Amino acid sequence: MHQIEFWFDFGSPYAYFGALQIEEIAERYGRTVSWRPFMLGAAFPVTGMRLLTETPLRGDYARHDWQRLARKFCAPFSLPAGFPTGSAKPGRAYYWLRDHQPAVAIPFAKAVFHNYFGEGIDGFSREGVLRTAAECGADVASLGSALDSDDLKQQFRAVTDEALGRGVFGSPFFFIDSEPFWGADRLALVDEWLSRGGW
Amino acid sequence: MHQIEFWFDFGSPYAYFGALQIEEIAERYGRTVSWRPFMLGAAFPVTGMRLLTETPLRGDYARHDWQRLARKFCAPFSLPAGFPTGSAKPGRAYYWLRDHQPAVAIPFAKAVFHNYFGEGIDGFSREGVLRTAAECGADVASLGSALDSDDLKQQFRAVTDEALGRGVFGSPFFFIDSEPFWGADRLALVDEWLSRGGW
Repeated sequence: MHQIEFWFDFGSPYAYFGALQIEEIAERYGRTVSWRPFMLGAAFPVTGMRLLTETPLRGDYARHDWQRLARKFCAPFSLPAGFPTGSAKPGRAYYWLRDHQPAVAIPFAKAVFHNYFGEGIDGFSREGVLRTAAECGADVASLGSALDSDDLKQQFRAVTDEALGRGVFGSPFFFIDSEPFWGADRLALVDEWLSRGGW
Repeated sequence: MHQIEFWFDFGSPYAYFGALQIEEIAERYGRTVSWRPFMLGAAFPVTGMRLLTETPLRGDYARHDWQRLARKFCAPFSLPAGFPTGSAKPGRAYYWLRDHQPAVAIPFAKAVFHNYFGEGIDGFSREGVLRTAAECGADVASLGSALDSDDLKQQFRAVTDEALGRGVFGSPFFFIDSEPFWGADRLALVDEWLSRGGW
């Protein structure tokens, strides 16, 4: 079965809104979703773009837009006090779970998004990541040993390099087969692409 | 009757796709469209953003995306050899027409988009602007006298300042009453906003 690739940074509000929708879209077309967190910040030196919240005018618009999207989707939305926070730890934890407890990986990713953006809990710290992983039934002792290891850091850097190599410059970013779609606001187009088999 | 404000730079491909759709959406809700060209380049020093075509990764994506949107809308699309070209002259001409031959202004704006992006004719030069204006029945002798005048330049700069003051940082950019929407890919959301009267 062809997968939909869902590339995202855990710290991206638009990725949160994408995560709320992509599984249902994929299911409707008999596809599964490959969740691929990466470090969006690595793309900024390449594109010259910046964090939305550090971009004048656009940052203000985005803050307004997130609230509007939250109301539209009846989704809980509450930015943590420290937002934006570096998201390397939940990203690394996701790949460790994918490789060692695959059944837990996507539930963990959804819980990370929900805790951070839905509940406004700053869960990107080591403690926050392990707490969320525990809620999802992860083997927290093993995950805790691996979380800050050089091997896992290197694996996550390689994933981020793969993203940039594929032309991923924003979050969320989707591939249907090889067709790229940037942005949660492109999910209607993604849906139409799947429905028509492209055009 | 409440208007929909449609802010755009004539040199923006996404504005071209927005221009193809916005009048029909507005009509469906008994609204008219206020066409407001401005100089997007003036926002770049404020936001730190750049021309799409000069943005690595994102520029390649955009070129692919424009062709995909053109196929989706069955819209003619052909980038002029000199793209991107400064769009001050068609912008100034639009406001002169709006003030002196209002019936011609929006047909002129549509013709500018069609010639530039639909036919790939580099119509942003003085000669190109006057040729397009003539096709639309403009008083080309008067327009030609005004086109490069300090007064009209100043008027267009003031419009661009107004755009930035309103938080407009991209093209196209829409306001429904005071609600801002950035991007041609937000027109489905614009439609839903009009349908529901906001949320």
